[in-house]
Amino acid sequence: MPNRLTGVWAAALTPLNEDLSVDLGAMVAHYRWLLANGCDGVAALGTTGEANSFTVAERHKVIEAVADAGLGDDAVMIGTGCCAFPDTVELTLAALAAGYHNILMLPPFYYKGVSADGLFATYATIIDRVGDDRLKVYVYDFPAMTGLEIDADLLARLHAAYPATVVGVKDSSGRWPDMEATCRRIPGFGTFAGTEQYLLPVVQAGGAGCISATANVTAPFCAEVWRAHRGGSGEAEALQERLSDLRLMLQRYPAVPSLKAIMAHHTGRDAWRRVRPPMLPLDQAAEARLLTEVTTAGLNLPEAA
Amino acid sequence: MPNRLTGVWAAALTPLNEDLSVDLGAMVAHYRWLLANGCDGVAALGTTGEANSFTVAERHKVIEAVADAGLGDDAVMIGTGCCAFPDTVELTLAALAAGYHNILMLPPFYYKGVSADGLFATYATIIDRVGDDRLKVYVYDFPAMTGLEIDADLLARLHAAYPATVVGVKDSSGRWPDMEATCRRIPGFGTFAGTEQYLLPVVQAGGAGCISATANVTAPFCAEVWRAHRGGSGEAEALQERLSDLRLMLQRYPAVPSLKAIMAHHTGRDAWRRVRPPMLPLDQAAEARLLTEVTTAGLNLPEAA
Repeated sequence: MPNRLTGVWAAALTPLNEDLSVDLGAMVAHYRWLLANGCDGVAALGTTGEANSFTVAERHKVIEAVADAGLGDDAVMIGTGCCAFPDTVELTLAALAAGYHNILMLPPFYYKGVSADGLFATYATIIDRVGDDRLKVYVYDFPAMTGLEIDADLLARLHAAYPATVVGVKDSSGRWPDMEATCRRIPGFGTFAGTEQYLLPVVQAGGAGCISATANVTAPFCAEVWRAHRGGSGEAEALQERLSDLRLMLQRYPAVPSLKAIMAHHTGRDAWRRVRPPMLPLDQAAEARLLTEVTTAGLNLPEAA
Repeated sequence: MPNRLTGVWAAALTPLNEDLSVDLGAMVAHYRWLLANGCDGVAALGTTGEANSFTVAERHKVIEAVADAGLGDDAVMIGTGCCAFPDTVELTLAALAAGYHNILMLPPFYYKGVSADGLFATYATIIDRVGDDRLKVYVYDFPAMTGLEIDADLLARLHAAYPATVVGVKDSSGRWPDMEATCRRIPGFGTFAGTEQYLLPVVQAGGAGCISATANVTAPFCAEVWRAHRGGSGEAEALQERLSDLRLMLQRYPAVPSLKAIMAHHTGRDAWRRVRPPMLPLDQAAEARLLTEVTTAGLNLPEAA
């Protein structure tokens, strides 16, 4: 099984400059801080990273900044899935050229009512046009955003057709039975839960770990669960319970603005609050409620870089 | 009221070459055929045109081809709405530079749960960055594809903030009460129904007309309704009833592949069957069923160019 990636991954936030361009320096610093504080890897240019609000040219710059920073191939996944398949091909080739082989790939997400055959054909078209044996695709299944369903049958079919290339999935369906079905159906597949609420269950079922938005702030707590599991410690279940409580509290707020508000508070940098349209920053009342809940929950973050 | 556009508009199909690039020559010929056979205008690069499956560079080429063909400003709307607002700004500027001022603008459609304030801010950001008084925005509301709701309140708010710029809507909700609410709420606004099923009702309610996928093949029948309405003929209701029957028959099939199959059959050009991933052509059995229904319904098309 060619999946090499496991553990705790953050779907990393993207800090923005005043003109709403990416603050590449702060972005790399945030990635390093995550990797130093509980993350086995970061997913760049995912949903939480507002990837779909950036142009292809802007995403090229993110890939270049990650490469220039020398972050390791197995510590970064690059999100490349766009609505137009030639854009996905172009960004995937750019990631490979920059030395990053692990690609988190959304299906084209504008059109709905697309069949499993249509989704299979799309991934096949992209993989064939990229034409690079080093490519490792992690299918990105996020039905609440895409309106599309990528089930264990389709994943098994893609993996059978491209066994060395389609090696995993980020399952952001929020549905544990779906994640469990994939773990059971494709042993050794890199099944990542899209929430740390299922970190311990998914690795116990044979999956790889989690890739989560809220891991931008819960990574140290995720890492405790992961270490306890790897060490065979009896504490893993209790640590998971505390982690799930944190996640469930955080997910009552809109993900990107609330996680950015926490980072702004933690770093003292207002710049962290910026989001791209169509999102808006949290209003002051919501931010105050969130920060109170964060403090009450004992979500203390390690010092910023 | 600065809306100048009315009548029957087709959300035009985009014919493709064998490598899935746009067949620009066949595209322009199709636009001309529509304009000669019942359409007051064509919407280029809409949902039916598979716009979101094309890159920004490919969409530039479509805009250039329309301009090179000398199609009139008030006979073409250009779709420019992308997920990343700088792409929408870029394509809108390109349309204006090419002489086309009527823009059909989707909101950014990846992120869900976006507030009305967030959608307002997005349109405001784009309009402000474009910064051109000649711009006429037709808001493109297609909740089944975008997962977002753009209601009469939000349209009224946008129109109040930009009275000379936000001048209409393509309401593809399929919900007649929504269309009627917009006509009532903003008199003189360019409210286009996204289906010819509501062509007569929407113009009777003070709206502008329809912009429809199926008008690629029903345009001559739409035009009969429109002419009867304009001429005050008592036949308008009966003609609308026949048109609605055609529409309801056609909309039981997946829009783009089925409309392309009809065009392939009509023109004798297999090339018309090509669609971009994630869509697939109709299978042979479905195509045969569709073509039988089309014949039975008396949907005879005028000779191809």
